Amino acid sequence: MSLRDIIGKTLSEWMKGTGPESDIVLSSRIRLARNLALVPFPATAQDSQKRHVVDLIDSVVKQEPVSPVLQNVDFVRLAEISPLERQLLVEKHLISPQHAHEVRHKAVILRDDEAVSIMVNEEDHLRHQTLFPGLQLQEAWKLCSKIDDAFAERLELASSVRWGFLTACPTNVGTGMRASIMMHLPALSMKDQMKRVATALSKFGVTVRGIYGEGTDVLGNVYQISNQVTLGQSEEEIIEHLVQLTRQILEQERNTREQIRSRNRIQLEDRIFRSYGVLTNARTLSTHEAMQLLSDVRMGIDMGLVKGLEPRILQELMVMIRPAHLQKLMGSEVDAPQRDIWRATFIRERMKLVA
Amino acid sequence: MSLRDIIGKTLSEWMKGTGPESDIVLSSRIRLARNLALVPFPATAQDSQKRHVVDLIDSVVKQEPVSPVLQNVDFVRLAEISPLERQLLVEKHLISPQHAHEVRHKAVILRDDEAVSIMVNEEDHLRHQTLFPGLQLQEAWKLCSKIDDAFAERLELASSVRWGFLTACPTNVGTGMRASIMMHLPALSMKDQMKRVATALSKFGVTVRGIYGEGTDVLGNVYQISNQVTLGQSEEEIIEHLVQLTRQILEQERNTREQIRSRNRIQLEDRIFRSYGVLTNARTLSTHEAMQLLSDVRMGIDMGLVKGLEPRILQELMVMIRPAHLQKLMGSEVDAPQRDIWRATFIRERMKLVA
Repeated sequence: MSLRDIIGKTLSEWMKGTGPESDIVLSSRIRLARNLALVPFPATAQDSQKRHVVDLIDSVVKQEPVSPVLQNVDFVRLAEISPLERQLLVEKHLISPQHAHEVRHKAVILRDDEAVSIMVNEEDHLRHQTLFPGLQLQEAWKLCSKIDDAFAERLELASSVRWGFLTACPTNVGTGMRASIMMHLPALSMKDQMKRVATALSKFGVTVRGIYGEGTDVLGNVYQISNQVTLGQSEEEIIEHLVQLTRQILEQERNTREQIRSRNRIQLEDRIFRSYGVLTNARTLSTHEAMQLLSDVRMGIDMGLVKGLEPRILQELMVMIRPAHLQKLMGSEVDAPQRDIWRATFIRERMKLVA
Repeated sequence: MSLRDIIGKTLSEWMKGTGPESDIVLSSRIRLARNLALVPFPATAQDSQKRHVVDLIDSVVKQEPVSPVLQNVDFVRLAEISPLERQLLVEKHLISPQHAHEVRHKAVILRDDEAVSIMVNEEDHLRHQTLFPGLQLQEAWKLCSKIDDAFAERLELASSVRWGFLTACPTNVGTGMRASIMMHLPALSMKDQMKRVATALSKFGVTVRGIYGEGTDVLGNVYQISNQVTLGQSEEEIIEHLVQLTRQILEQERNTREQIRSRNRIQLEDRIFRSYGVLTNARTLSTHEAMQLLSDVRMGIDMGLVKGLEPRILQELMVMIRPAHLQKLMGSEVDAPQRDIWRATFIRERMKLVA
């Protein structure tokens, strides 16, 4: 299998770098937390109850006639796949890091294009997720809502007239919805503007964080922007609001890029091309360094300075160079220093493929 | 004129990277300080006396029959060339930095292959210099001695039976000879061994310093090793001794390279190729950074890790990227930031030329 084939097979739909505003917005994600009525939340449920939930959801997914939105899905019990495979799903943002630990009576439903994934028995009984490339939050919401309807028609969900959907964590009660935008913001980062942006967004109930879940470092200037509030607003209002804020950040990032280009063109080009030079020549690269270099190169592509590389190289490599993906690619599990060598080798080879 | 032509025309013989042990020894140099009897040293001579010295030397050089070692030479009065041209001669190590300042009644005699240069009215009336590629100190001495003989036959030189040749600075009295070896010692530098080497050499009356005269920083791990003692030993003894010490340092450098290769191969390759990546991609480079990167790449070539580049790229570029050479090449004089941009451009273009 050629490298191109491996990449093709390994890529989720969102990594292909299409969609509106895809120069800056890498992906749009909707996640809905839902629970079955009359069964305790996973944290307090007994083993038999959790097993029951998994079996019930499995049967719902297969129940004829299968809902159009549940075509082409796999029901995967996490205990039945390897730790490496579970880690692959984490790196692709298809399951949470928490879901990959303590895997008894946990499952995930995956659609073959990986635009839909549903975690079973994570913090809640059901966590529906839709993941679209570019700025397509409304589209992601429409699909996620249909999936929610499909389950709601077949199961009794925990909700109250007063509060809306009930969830394990009180911060999710109400809509149970978390809408997230993944954005590449190298110019704002370079100009130390992200703290200011985060402070401003927090006043609107919107948080900014890195790409692998809460509390993680920012890698390669890729940020997740998501709503905190799930109560007192409709899903449409929350999404509309988040899209508006996203458009403002988009504009700030684009303006900052042009400002840097006009005031510090040589320094900008120098930085971008040095990063290109290191990425295409280094013999060992940590994830953290590789992501920073990829971020620079991606900005160079976006700004028309680097030719012959596809923009999607960022999305593609930001997943492909993570530990589990690298190990899957190379066919064995090794320690971090060896992974750093493989990572450098893989990036060099990948960057030889022209657009 | 193509880049290749410009380089060809600008290169001195020693920059072509030939000669014994040329993987580590870049050049061998002999310098002899001589003064005319009955004329005060330049520092105390009157203008008319200094003018007399210049005219006298000019006539000696042209006196028929011309000595075989003074064929194909130019007699250049420094006041008659531009400051930029004088700086070019400094950068090629053909005249000292001091000789390029206060240029009234100063001259230099240059042989067309630049293996011979004779400064007139520097610190002494005459400073003969021969500069050979690789480890050829005896050969450089033989030629310099013949040049010395040619002048001694035609002029009365200041000397005493007790002290030998008399010179302006007492540290040169006796042989008046300074023998220097220019060595590229990246592995010893990388392992922080150069202080130890310098301390050991000082016990033998041998000094270690950077490449552009005393007190200058080391650039690109290129060191000058030269005798301090000019009294109480014959020229042959001094040279023999310096060659022996050079061979010891050579061996230490080679052993250290192999040690690094066997113990830290990946880190070594990583460093070398990152430097290659930056050199071939950066948009602005200081002399200092460029020299360090070139040093890494040159070591990579020597060790068979970098293919397709000639080893002499180090000698060539260490001169070509100096301010005066760059400005000559680009045809105008500019400030340091602009030179850094030109330097990066020139290096990128040069490195595209394959061996």
